Amino acid sequence: MPGPIQSIERAAAILRLLSSGARRMSVGELARALELPKGTVHGILRTLQLVGFVEQSEDGGPYRLGAALFHIGTSYLDGNELRTRALNWSDSLAARSMESVRIGTLHEGQVLVVHHVFRPDNSSQVLEVGALLPAHATALGKVLLATDPVGLDFADPVQRFTPRTLTDPDDLTKALDEVRELGWAAEVEELVEGEVSIAAPIRDRRMVTVGAIGVSGPIERLCDADRKPKSQLVSYVREAARAISRELGALPW
Amino acid sequence: MPGPIQSIERAAAILRLLSSGARRMSVGELARALELPKGTVHGILRTLQLVGFVEQSEDGGPYRLGAALFHIGTSYLDGNELRTRALNWSDSLAARSMESVRIGTLHEGQVLVVHHVFRPDNSSQVLEVGALLPAHATALGKVLLATDPVGLDFADPVQRFTPRTLTDPDDLTKALDEVRELGWAAEVEELVEGEVSIAAPIRDRRMVTVGAIGVSGPIERLCDADRKPKSQLVSYVREAARAISRELGALPW
Repeated sequence: MPGPIQSIERAAAILRLLSSGARRMSVGELARALELPKGTVHGILRTLQLVGFVEQSEDGGPYRLGAALFHIGTSYLDGNELRTRALNWSDSLAARSMESVRIGTLHEGQVLVVHHVFRPDNSSQVLEVGALLPAHATALGKVLLATDPVGLDFADPVQRFTPRTLTDPDDLTKALDEVRELGWAAEVEELVEGEVSIAAPIRDRRMVTVGAIGVSGPIERLCDADRKPKSQLVSYVREAARAISRELGALPW
Repeated sequence: MPGPIQSIERAAAILRLLSSGARRMSVGELARALELPKGTVHGILRTLQLVGFVEQSEDGGPYRLGAALFHIGTSYLDGNELRTRALNWSDSLAARSMESVRIGTLHEGQVLVVHHVFRPDNSSQVLEVGALLPAHATALGKVLLATDPVGLDFADPVQRFTPRTLTDPDDLTKALDEVRELGWAAEVEELVEGEVSIAAPIRDRRMVTVGAIGVSGPIERLCDADRKPKSQLVSYVREAARAISRELGALPW
């Protein structure tokens, strides 16, 4: 079988670079980052510009991602069965818990947010759909790591966000064992001080975990005085996860 | 100068096909749509799969867009100056008007929604960021077409959505002239029966229209008894558009 097509791999690498960090890069900067000749990178950029995947504010200026790529990328959600099936249940979980709701899937070791319902209180909130969250420091991520066949890659050091972030491989292994046993996960001030999240797995007809749903909010609202997640909220999250799983064909559990 | 790179153009065409219509297509269906040999399409798909731009549920099954493309595509918004500058003003327009707010730019003759603030009333609403709306039947689109150097392409027939949709080239030309004169646009039941939208242009330091901001909602709330947009709402929209324009460096107008 012939190998992958080099120019497409390089085009994808350019798009990845433009989607992270600086967001605007010159031909020279991209060539250096990819260790390719400027002429090669320029040819790829011209083609990407032609199809609307990259844009320039002015001739000779730096490149940034293009509107066509944005439109194509967001239409991924319309084809995402998990999200489609979960829309109503996410709204109802937000209404019952009065907290913001997120649905995530595992993507390259991180949590990709595919749906986000704002906390129903009219406060100004930033939409996180499309964002990547650290798996080891979020309840969504713990659920996904605990049930993923590959799981956590202990070769990569995990980042510390607060004094409570679990970074020791033994602590993380123990925490994921506990998640598997309980059937849900919590994270108390492990990503942001004062913030808590609770999540449960969404399973499909093969009983494979295909995503996680959870709530997040301030510790005063989500936890009891002993810093444990309120059992009522845990029930709401688990009920929503089970309801979506049933829609995806999972047997009741 | 060498021409565009064929394999990248073909990869982009495959991604476009998967982002519209069926959303799941087999190698054979893609090959037929692109009039290419199956082997060629298969090679491109394998590379796109390797970089995470397409996915398969199972070996040999149909292809769909991949999560990596979704993540890269949505990061377009973080680099979008118009949206970044407009976040606060959109929230405040939604709060003042009590209606949902959208910001759009022109993309291939349609309105690309780059920001959407829900109506602040806790009702269930669908996020439209990344969606394309018909330009001739929305207030956002009329503003953008009226100020675009290319404008409406009368070669393409425009679609009728309701009995009130403007489809006649003369009617549309007159409507766009009026928008230029007034400095804002309205659309009354031209896209959806019972729905109205009002929009105004966002300009940058060159005084070029780079986007439009507007509100939309039911005719009972947005119009007076004579089917004319309420002047108070028009003022709110125009004030928000001017405020964002000033942040982008436009002279006050």
